[in-house]
Amino acid sequence: MKKYKVAVAGATGLVGSTILKLLEEMKFPISELIPLASKNSAGKEITFLEQKIVVRELQPNSFEGVDFAFFAAGGKVSRAFAPRAVEAGALVIDNSSEFRMDNDVPLVVPEVNGEDILLHKGIIANPNCSTIQCMAALKCVQQIAGIKRIVYSTYQSVSGSGMKGLRDLDEGLNEFYPHPIEGNILPHIDVFFDDGYTKEEKKMIGETRKILHQDIAITATAARVPVRFAHCVSINVETERAFDLEAIKRAFGEQAELILYDDPSSQKYPLPRLAEGKNEVFVGRVRRDPSVQNGLNLWTVADNIRKGAATNAVQIGLACIERGVKWLRY
Amino acid sequence: MKKYKVAVAGATGLVGSTILKLLEEMKFPISELIPLASKNSAGKEITFLEQKIVVRELQPNSFEGVDFAFFAAGGKVSRAFAPRAVEAGALVIDNSSEFRMDNDVPLVVPEVNGEDILLHKGIIANPNCSTIQCMAALKCVQQIAGIKRIVYSTYQSVSGSGMKGLRDLDEGLNEFYPHPIEGNILPHIDVFFDDGYTKEEKKMIGETRKILHQDIAITATAARVPVRFAHCVSINVETERAFDLEAIKRAFGEQAELILYDDPSSQKYPLPRLAEGKNEVFVGRVRRDPSVQNGLNLWTVADNIRKGAATNAVQIGLACIERGVKWLRY
Repeated sequence: MKKYKVAVAGATGLVGSTILKLLEEMKFPISELIPLASKNSAGKEITFLEQKIVVRELQPNSFEGVDFAFFAAGGKVSRAFAPRAVEAGALVIDNSSEFRMDNDVPLVVPEVNGEDILLHKGIIANPNCSTIQCMAALKCVQQIAGIKRIVYSTYQSVSGSGMKGLRDLDEGLNEFYPHPIEGNILPHIDVFFDDGYTKEEKKMIGETRKILHQDIAITATAARVPVRFAHCVSINVETERAFDLEAIKRAFGEQAELILYDDPSSQKYPLPRLAEGKNEVFVGRVRRDPSVQNGLNLWTVADNIRKGAATNAVQIGLACIERGVKWLRY
Repeated sequence: MKKYKVAVAGATGLVGSTILKLLEEMKFPISELIPLASKNSAGKEITFLEQKIVVRELQPNSFEGVDFAFFAAGGKVSRAFAPRAVEAGALVIDNSSEFRMDNDVPLVVPEVNGEDILLHKGIIANPNCSTIQCMAALKCVQQIAGIKRIVYSTYQSVSGSGMKGLRDLDEGLNEFYPHPIEGNILPHIDVFFDDGYTKEEKKMIGETRKILHQDIAITATAARVPVRFAHCVSINVETERAFDLEAIKRAFGEQAELILYDDPSSQKYPLPRLAEGKNEVFVGRVRRDPSVQNGLNLWTVADNIRKGAATNAVQIGLACIERGVKWLRY
């Protein structure tokens, strides 16, 4: 089996270090691992497959001979270095939002639109954490009954903001967020636009359409909650056609990377504490919404650092291998 | 000015003790205050208008000569004792859900449907906490553009479950809720029905219709969040007619008991920590929802113990006086 030279930019961050963990867990076929980080973190040691590896400073020439370059160091770093990695012949899997909506960049949840991988031009984007966890369930709904409209309301944990978000919550600080997050709910994630929506809300709208290959009518409200790990999304869907609720549930149960966890009589419904540390998305509270002709309510929960970021990124890499993706340098 | 004899059942609980505080704050015209509680709490002393008053045990004959009887001791107590209070000639203002949907019981948010008070048959019901805080804003929307459909997603604090909810959160316990609430989100408030909805969700649907006097298409998802005080609701509204967004905002700004707090560029949007301890409802994130023809998104926050319970109950009492309500015994 072919093995690959893999670089991880942002290797010491919350998502980057989880990517390292998942490359191990998922037995990614690696010949050499190159952990990269900013000058501040360079020189630190990480342990990978029981070997100590020194973190190198991310530089334009860091990607020579690299096959897969995972980027998890924020938008600015991706903007500056991902093109360099592509020029050096690497296939970039980027966790930032920098390239997600670019026409020639596939935006991929492998079990939902894995075929899009083959259209890459060197960069494949990992979707927004809240978007990722809605895709598998919505794909099932789309296939069974078509989707006319979606109303999202999110409950997003502080780890979505990285170590700084965790610190504000854990230490009761107000250094990173504009307001204290402890004992509070902030209906504000990322910057505001003039129309009153946040960038996070627009990401969910635009990325959902791109991944599901349909210009669906969507609205979203995104809120930060005082939870450490895992996001929840209350999803209201209006479908194009009538549906059998049991058929929807069956499809959820059979869908890869999705766990139907929906037995209210036994207090079973998706929870952050259930999803934390897991790679799958949990879906529950599956019920008809009689307020429209073909309405459906769902509640999804996933570990935002895992399936919402690192797990999906590593799964994109594995899907590239399985699907025989071509590198630009060949 | 006439003064009234006022009893408070559940006077030592979270809502009951706040009713006492608000009777003082709002200068309710009281000739005599009678704090009532279960046998366990009887004998305790409360302080009201700088006087010490001994809490009496709630009994069938507790209401002789009482004008206003506030009930805040749960559904069972209301079911058992509210009819006794009415028989004794008191006007009952009940915080439980026991009588809310009864045809001959007005369900009132005074600034929204205060006129319904006059139809009482001895009991006036105080709506559900999450419902109350949506009513003033939705009434404005209804008057300006009509309401076709509402999608609610709630973020409800643990004080909605009383002292037991606070204790589970504060001490990291799992005694009251079916799952730990610390670092978690529970999409489960009150009991589940066979159709997959919770009683809390059904309350929001039924009570909204009753208060707004219209059989609106509504769906709801209610979730408990690890916050001590104040509930948030993400409200998606589809109106019957086109509307001017500025006219909606103006109406919110002019609406009694509602504060338009909506300046994202200055990080101003309603937050639990902002609403805690306040009597008004805060509304913000007011924006068009382009996913339907006439769509609107709102974010309301209110202190669930105050406007969501005690404040609204006391305001019902004051509205009864202002509107010259008739007692059944006259």
